[in-house]
Amino acid sequence: MADVATLVEQARQGRPRAVARLITLVENAAPELREVMAALAPYSGRAYTVGLTGSPGVGKSTSTSALVTAYRRLGKRVGVLAVDPSSPFSGGALLGDRVRMQEHATDPEVFIRSMATRGHLGGLSWAAPQALRVLDGAGCDVILVETVGVGQSEVEIAAQADTSVVLLAPGMGDGIQAAKAGILEIGDVFVVNKADRDGADATARELNHMLGLGESRQPGDWRPPIVKTVAARGEGVDELVEALEKHHAWLSETGELAARRRRRAAQEVEAITLAALRARIGDLRGDRHLDALAGQVAEGALDPYTAADRLVAELTG
Amino acid sequence: MADVATLVEQARQGRPRAVARLITLVENAAPELREVMAALAPYSGRAYTVGLTGSPGVGKSTSTSALVTAYRRLGKRVGVLAVDPSSPFSGGALLGDRVRMQEHATDPEVFIRSMATRGHLGGLSWAAPQALRVLDGAGCDVILVETVGVGQSEVEIAAQADTSVVLLAPGMGDGIQAAKAGILEIGDVFVVNKADRDGADATARELNHMLGLGESRQPGDWRPPIVKTVAARGEGVDELVEALEKHHAWLSETGELAARRRRRAAQEVEAITLAALRARIGDLRGDRHLDALAGQVAEGALDPYTAADRLVAELTG
Repeated sequence: MADVATLVEQARQGRPRAVARLITLVENAAPELREVMAALAPYSGRAYTVGLTGSPGVGKSTSTSALVTAYRRLGKRVGVLAVDPSSPFSGGALLGDRVRMQEHATDPEVFIRSMATRGHLGGLSWAAPQALRVLDGAGCDVILVETVGVGQSEVEIAAQADTSVVLLAPGMGDGIQAAKAGILEIGDVFVVNKADRDGADATARELNHMLGLGESRQPGDWRPPIVKTVAARGEGVDELVEALEKHHAWLSETGELAARRRRRAAQEVEAITLAALRARIGDLRGDRHLDALAGQVAEGALDPYTAADRLVAELTG
Repeated sequence: MADVATLVEQARQGRPRAVARLITLVENAAPELREVMAALAPYSGRAYTVGLTGSPGVGKSTSTSALVTAYRRLGKRVGVLAVDPSSPFSGGALLGDRVRMQEHATDPEVFIRSMATRGHLGGLSWAAPQALRVLDGAGCDVILVETVGVGQSEVEIAAQADTSVVLLAPGMGDGIQAAKAGILEIGDVFVVNKADRDGADATARELNHMLGLGESRQPGDWRPPIVKTVAARGEGVDELVEALEKHHAWLSETGELAARRRRRAAQEVEAITLAALRARIGDLRGDRHLDALAGQVAEGALDPYTAADRLVAELTG
């Protein structure tokens, strides 16, 4: 394969194959990543990232595609990252998304990539931000991160974006589900999609009510708007982009954008640090080390905390 | 509250309230745990632990209750730990199980405890083994670990037991589900419960076929038996106990029992070590530490690997 410096240079010029190959390196947790990330570091932090979450069937892919169209009309270069935390395989599960994205496939200013993260060494706290760095380095103005599947890991991925969009649809009992999954707290912008269906107003009201039940806001706090869309027909999508731009502006003005990015960077650095320390624990051999300590714990000669103390002392000198 | 030494002494005498309070300390990841585990260490490794997993509806609770009855007839002291990895609350979700366990509630030789582990600081690799240590220290001969819910975490809990029992029921398409969840690999003993229903033989055949598809066994390897039961009527439960005793004997004779326990102890020590190191990362403050490094990464002045290198160097002197 091409050397890392060449790949990174080609990705910076916006060449899709280079971008795709770098994201494959991320997906495979390849050893070259260290060099890739070092080369990309100076070009990071430019893109505005938007995470889209919601139950299957609310129209995430359609909404993502509609947002791509809207941002392209504004002349923006757009990246799309579809993350599937439940699958160890790329492609298959996400074929549907790709089909729906077909209309953008030949646009040289749109980068679309699916990524499977199950089994990724560094886990979600690691894979998604690295893929975002690649798209960021490729000069994307906006990156849309769409998650496949529901659950805790989805919430974690949403937390990787500057702005989190939570999508609902009428009559799916989504409000309660979202509340249970802790998704209400992470939403910066809410979308009731399929707003031409019965029950759209009721869903919006229910959502509005639940958002109001949260803790009281201070003046200057962000109040998450609820936007109604029919993404399949492009209705309400300009209003959604407007809501996103407002949130982006609010993030920048309040310093929250920088704060969120620092928090994310801290999580990423911590995850890499822990993986490095874990590797060191695994490397330790000999009488005072993990295997021997585990043997003593299993025999009841030592309790696990004292064993851990000894390992920590060993590691930290 | 009573001091730790007293609680541990009372638990060792088999006093249920003391056992319950110690498991509550585990559930809450209380600071006293270090002292508890040190006090219990000399009394650990006596109990034979059996994990029970299977989809909702296969009759896990009923089977657990039937096993308690069977082991009590053999004069054994029995512990039951019902672990719910998806719930942050004790009690509620597990009320059903407790009701089914009612017949054993007044037996002083049976300890029944539900435990919610979601949000537990150390995660599953930590909470379940500590609760097992408490029941072990309380003199249980056999501990049944029943998991609530399905998924990866269930497999992890099963891996904490000496013997893993995987339960299926006819006509639930369970075979395929189990294969997908990676549950076939962890089963030491398989149970087709509700064996009086249509399709029980087909389920057993399908299971037998899938087990045969696995890698070829060496002479002396354990071949997982398939036991048919109707747990609600106690049918087949003696055969299940016999299969468990055979596996227990095989584990002991081959040295696999000690090997499994060492592996589990190693995981436990590693988890505690990583938590301690993570706490140290959080404690680090100042120019060269996590917050400042994260700021530099967020600004693109540093890549995350180099930042992690500096943290590791800082921690390991």
